[in-house]
Amino acid sequence: MNIKMIIYMLGRISFLEAILLVLPLSCALIYKENTILAFLITIGIALGLGAVCSLVGRTKDKAIFAREGFVIVALAWILMSAIGALPFYISREIPHYYDAFFETVSGFTTTGASILTDVEAMSKGLLFWRSFSHWIGGMGVLVLVIAIIPTETGRTIHIMRAEMPGPIVDKLVPKVKSTAKILYLIYIVLTAVQVILLVVGGMPFFESLIHTFGTAGTGGFGVKADSIGGYSPYLQWVIAIFMLIFGINFNLYYLVLIKKVNSALKSEELWWYISIVVVSAGIITANIYPIYKGFGESVRHAVFQVATIISTTGFATVDFNLWPTLSKTILFVLMFIGACAGATAGGLKISRVVVLFKTIRANLRHMLHPRSVDSISFEGKRLDKETCNNVTSYFAIYFISFTIMFLLISFEKFDLETNISAVAACFNNIGPGLAGVGPASNYSAYSPFSKMVLSYAMLLGRLEILPMILLFSPSVWLRRKAKKK
Amino acid sequence: MNIKMIIYMLGRISFLEAILLVLPLSCALIYKENTILAFLITIGIALGLGAVCSLVGRTKDKAIFAREGFVIVALAWILMSAIGALPFYISREIPHYYDAFFETVSGFTTTGASILTDVEAMSKGLLFWRSFSHWIGGMGVLVLVIAIIPTETGRTIHIMRAEMPGPIVDKLVPKVKSTAKILYLIYIVLTAVQVILLVVGGMPFFESLIHTFGTAGTGGFGVKADSIGGYSPYLQWVIAIFMLIFGINFNLYYLVLIKKVNSALKSEELWWYISIVVVSAGIITANIYPIYKGFGESVRHAVFQVATIISTTGFATVDFNLWPTLSKTILFVLMFIGACAGATAGGLKISRVVVLFKTIRANLRHMLHPRSVDSISFEGKRLDKETCNNVTSYFAIYFISFTIMFLLISFEKFDLETNISAVAACFNNIGPGLAGVGPASNYSAYSPFSKMVLSYAMLLGRLEILPMILLFSPSVWLRRKAKKK
Repeated sequence: MNIKMIIYMLGRISFLEAILLVLPLSCALIYKENTILAFLITIGIALGLGAVCSLVGRTKDKAIFAREGFVIVALAWILMSAIGALPFYISREIPHYYDAFFETVSGFTTTGASILTDVEAMSKGLLFWRSFSHWIGGMGVLVLVIAIIPTETGRTIHIMRAEMPGPIVDKLVPKVKSTAKILYLIYIVLTAVQVILLVVGGMPFFESLIHTFGTAGTGGFGVKADSIGGYSPYLQWVIAIFMLIFGINFNLYYLVLIKKVNSALKSEELWWYISIVVVSAGIITANIYPIYKGFGESVRHAVFQVATIISTTGFATVDFNLWPTLSKTILFVLMFIGACAGATAGGLKISRVVVLFKTIRANLRHMLHPRSVDSISFEGKRLDKETCNNVTSYFAIYFISFTIMFLLISFEKFDLETNISAVAACFNNIGPGLAGVGPASNYSAYSPFSKMVLSYAMLLGRLEILPMILLFSPSVWLRRKAKKK
Repeated sequence: MNIKMIIYMLGRISFLEAILLVLPLSCALIYKENTILAFLITIGIALGLGAVCSLVGRTKDKAIFAREGFVIVALAWILMSAIGALPFYISREIPHYYDAFFETVSGFTTTGASILTDVEAMSKGLLFWRSFSHWIGGMGVLVLVIAIIPTETGRTIHIMRAEMPGPIVDKLVPKVKSTAKILYLIYIVLTAVQVILLVVGGMPFFESLIHTFGTAGTGGFGVKADSIGGYSPYLQWVIAIFMLIFGINFNLYYLVLIKKVNSALKSEELWWYISIVVVSAGIITANIYPIYKGFGESVRHAVFQVATIISTTGFATVDFNLWPTLSKTILFVLMFIGACAGATAGGLKISRVVVLFKTIRANLRHMLHPRSVDSISFEGKRLDKETCNNVTSYFAIYFISFTIMFLLISFEKFDLETNISAVAACFNNIGPGLAGVGPASNYSAYSPFSKMVLSYAMLLGRLEILPMILLFSPSVWLRRKAKKK
């Protein structure tokens, strides 16, 4: 294990966060808020830590393998959140550090689960930082590091692979650094377009920025107690559509960029995504039709809520906790599916679910016709047995992790629906769940222990389980004894 | 596909059921009840159907392969339930046929979920038949056919494999027929011991018989509205312990029988089973201690409820739906785990869960050390990659089936907890769930459509998914085109 290189990379992360904190600081300066000092202290701490890590981590051996990739990613996310929580805590706007940590983890992991009981009372600088963390976390902090900081190692693909969501990580172009830059470019352009569309629709600039950060990262932190409920239908539609857009694999936008529109449209995952959205929104529209004033309103609320859950964003235009059981059940199931791989969304990812179905079908066939050989193909490529087994195995580890976390938070006084949907909403990086943690409620009532479990759940979900489990596995840290042949 | 042989075997099943129906008929005769005619008509129908099938299914080609095994088992269970429902329907004690079918499927699959709103009003003959179906279904109807009816084919292992619960089916002795006989012998002896112990404790003979059938098959149908709640602590302990005993792999009893006690005690699955029971009961005892009068009562209720859920029986001494969330959550998780493979219990089975954990650990190791080869061993034997993949794949198919059924019954007016626990309780062959389908309630309020879905769930659970899915798969029925080499 190359410990020095890990420390070195953590130092880079600290520096990066110090730079990123300049934006909310500027915001606080513009609005002349008294959180300026809190931001300055945090920046100082981040710079100091970065300097120490850079000194300690100096090494000539820059090799990064799979193990180091996982550990760097896991520790980087914990470090980012630990530092990022400081402004909330130092400014006393969130009095307990564990609450501030929960809120920041929720930000970076693009979950959007909040412990704030009165979001409208927060200062603008901290609101900005809270939502900006969604934007950073959406594309991945280490992808950002790779994109902007000069690195001399050629093995950064191991870092990217550990941080990017989805079963298969493709480099768009031969160089990892260029891939990271292209991804961020697409991300920035889409973000800009959404801000413009919101401002055009009459939303104040600050709020447009905040809501776009929440949409782009598929996070869901807003500025109002009723989330998006108070805005005009036009603004709700813009946000709904952009939530869906940010749930699509960014590789497809790259294909469009290099004028391979046909290949982009042929994406199997894309069509499954669209089909699931259309069918779910259709059923829910019919189911909630009697509640609302007309067809238009029912469709809007149905599409918005399907978009917010499948893209794992977590905004809401209505309290869907009050909807009929059928609609709630569909949303509950969508919580687990999530959107496309290679997007900013959480959940299992559609490609994984599709590959899982295909693997199962092939296994059933094989059971009936033991001598036949079925090959599984996805996105036009034949999948090897290893990939399929990894997908079923991921599925198993996902449900076991889910069950353990569900058991750990069941010491609380809440009902089963609250607890199960709290784990689902945090693990899949959505934010609001059902019942006691529905869109009209928040996570403040949970005990500090449960908040730590749920913070872990958010990291586990965002980093797709492995880095966060391997971090605590002794075999990552110990050198294996060489086996005799 | 050997259709004739399938029809032939279904004929045998019909004959067998006609014979089995003589017992409840005798019961009705003893108590001079007016259900006698209903039983006689049903026996007539079963005999007629058996005769027709025997004529139509006459063939010299007695070959049974994996495909035929699955289809025979799936159709046999549906046929058994369809015929078994007739006495309830003809006697008008259950006015709707779909309710009678639900109740009978629940009986044969040893689920114990009931649509009866007043069980104490039922006639004794039908109560006997209802519970006797647990006893028959526990060990498997086709195992019984193999044990008692002369068959000229040597391929009956395919039938047994499709019906026996658990990831691996071992023949105890080289001949399948002898294995089936030994299993039934153990089953009968254990049943007799429990009846004696209950009668000694002061339970009337008829009730002892009913409750033993429910325990042995891990079914859970009783005769009282409060299940086992009204009986003495001694009787509750006897039933609790026997529920646990019937959750142990019967192969271990065979090992004890042939004086290999040490091998039996070395069983990994057994120790996991005991550990889970002890830990769960311990936590629940502490959690419910404030509710009851003392330590003894808390332990008794905790052990009984853990035993009833993990063995997937479904008796209850208290309404555990009123317990604190922690205890309810533990029970909810135990619903999925189930007891040992090769027992009469439902659920995922402990061996499967253990193999799953081991597979995941090996996969994680492999990810970190790609060149290392980890072998997974269970019960002292090395498992091949195929078995491990089958287990993870089973897990995936299990959760997908679960989700689909959960969606299908969400058209109901009940809350999420009721619906999710209804599917869990039926799919895992337990019986009572939580909230609206808790121990103090029943399934009568569900729509006929949901009752059909839940009946399917019970069959899916009892036959471990594959036969019931393959039955509807075109590739079972169609001959595959020969592939050119």
